[in-house]
Amino acid sequence: MHLNPAKIAALIALAAPLPIAAQAPAPATEEAPTPNGVIAAAPAAAWKAIAPEDLLVMMLEGNRRVVIQLAPHFSQGHVGNMRVLAKAHFWDGTSVYRIQDNYVAQWGDRSEKKPHPPGMKSPLPQDYSIPYSDDLKMFELPSRDSYAHLAGFIDGWPVATDHDQIWMTHCYGSVGVGRNGPPDAGTGAELYAVIGHGPRQLDRNIALVGRVVEGIAHLSSLPRGTAEIGMYGPEQKETPILSVRLASDMPESERPWFEMMDTASKSFADYVHVRANRKDDFYILPAGGVDVCNVPVPIRSRP
Amino acid sequence: MHLNPAKIAALIALAAPLPIAAQAPAPATEEAPTPNGVIAAAPAAAWKAIAPEDLLVMMLEGNRRVVIQLAPHFSQGHVGNMRVLAKAHFWDGTSVYRIQDNYVAQWGDRSEKKPHPPGMKSPLPQDYSIPYSDDLKMFELPSRDSYAHLAGFIDGWPVATDHDQIWMTHCYGSVGVGRNGPPDAGTGAELYAVIGHGPRQLDRNIALVGRVVEGIAHLSSLPRGTAEIGMYGPEQKETPILSVRLASDMPESERPWFEMMDTASKSFADYVHVRANRKDDFYILPAGGVDVCNVPVPIRSRP
Repeated sequence: MHLNPAKIAALIALAAPLPIAAQAPAPATEEAPTPNGVIAAAPAAAWKAIAPEDLLVMMLEGNRRVVIQLAPHFSQGHVGNMRVLAKAHFWDGTSVYRIQDNYVAQWGDRSEKKPHPPGMKSPLPQDYSIPYSDDLKMFELPSRDSYAHLAGFIDGWPVATDHDQIWMTHCYGSVGVGRNGPPDAGTGAELYAVIGHGPRQLDRNIALVGRVVEGIAHLSSLPRGTAEIGMYGPEQKETPILSVRLASDMPESERPWFEMMDTASKSFADYVHVRANRKDDFYILPAGGVDVCNVPVPIRSRP
Repeated sequence: MHLNPAKIAALIALAAPLPIAAQAPAPATEEAPTPNGVIAAAPAAAWKAIAPEDLLVMMLEGNRRVVIQLAPHFSQGHVGNMRVLAKAHFWDGTSVYRIQDNYVAQWGDRSEKKPHPPGMKSPLPQDYSIPYSDDLKMFELPSRDSYAHLAGFIDGWPVATDHDQIWMTHCYGSVGVGRNGPPDAGTGAELYAVIGHGPRQLDRNIALVGRVVEGIAHLSSLPRGTAEIGMYGPEQKETPILSVRLASDMPESERPWFEMMDTASKSFADYVHVRANRKDDFYILPAGGVDVCNVPVPIRSRP
């Protein structure tokens, strides 16, 4: 298996999208900045540490770690329930039991028989959006959005708005709450992660509670379910969930540490501009626009 | 593993996106049509057979079949080369050697040492777009596009336009041609399929030649590459490609047969409308819009 240097360079240039946990950054050049170059050049002030209270660490069988960052503004009843569930070790011994291609990976207690721990709130309101306010200091994407008046970011999270309400958007890696038909809004015990093209039609129809910041491939590369809507069939082995813990409940030495780019920083504005206007060597025609799900917020592990 | 009927119904309602090869259709209801309902109700006249000359059948080790439909309007030099390569059995014995999460699966002759068969055209022009014309009878998506003046469909394929040129869009399942830096446009020997959120920044920068109509999960669920940009590392096993044939070169009894919805039909217009305005039981707020990559053209196998 040989690759000549020109080919390797071209393949690297082709490697446009950052994974959610950032790749090893490439050097920036003044002439043709790349998204990775902007990330590498961002000063320390452009990064914000993610609190261990906001990280859920899910261990799958086979030492596969998936880390989820909890969202701060939306569906806080669900997020609160998830903290209760993690502290009660509710998810230990449950499974990933649904993988639907170009859509979602879903996990939790498939039997629905496992008792919920005390302290959970139910039923929860359909608080899928919150009132829009200038105080939210939304970073507004200059590109048009196919689903809303405007898309952008607040406090590191992708959002869309009609200027009356504002809501999180379903993008690759987004984590949401399974539910039955409305008015049920789910409890937070059953979760899914998006593993395909952003299913934006779900925005404002289901509670988004966070995003996968490490290990999404441990979900996206699982075998697809053979039963309807990607449910695992009786001949398939579900993926056992060994444990789910808040990082803040783990010994400090075992905690993962992450930081995310401040979406109010100049670095982030530069990053968005470069993602919408790729002019580095591989590109012939810059797109001149970008959709909110094609701007993964840079997140990286830190020592 | 038990699921109560209400839960199953809710999960089915949650199963919004059609895979590229259509699922078993659900019945349509007058009150709240679903995308699957529109597909099921479409008359025979709304479907067009896909010619066997336009289908590439790739067999991966383990009896995994991936079927690619070749595009009719764009990058015809590349499509022509791909027919030559298939007839010469060029891809037999090559491999899938790159899987980058939320981006692409790539295959071909990683060594780049395998001689190309006679009859291939090289170098090929960068014909990534063609002049826009009303004669193309583009179905115009009513929703705004983040990357172009307008997005829509011609002859069953997703496209975008600035009303001067028109080009194919990079969506989940799209197949394109690996290349080195410009002006090289690649030959068609090295191919990739999109396995993540539509990387529209590649539009007009690389040759799109088709889409996967069956078996995308055989690519999207492969283990991610451990080396840079998802290249397989030395410890990983590439997926062997046993054969790639045009369906028209296979015995009739072994050929796959597919048909696609006519994107000029009323059924397709209905389908787009329903995808942009989901009002069936699970949905609380219809999106009121949809992006071109979230409208997979219905394709189904036929007897």
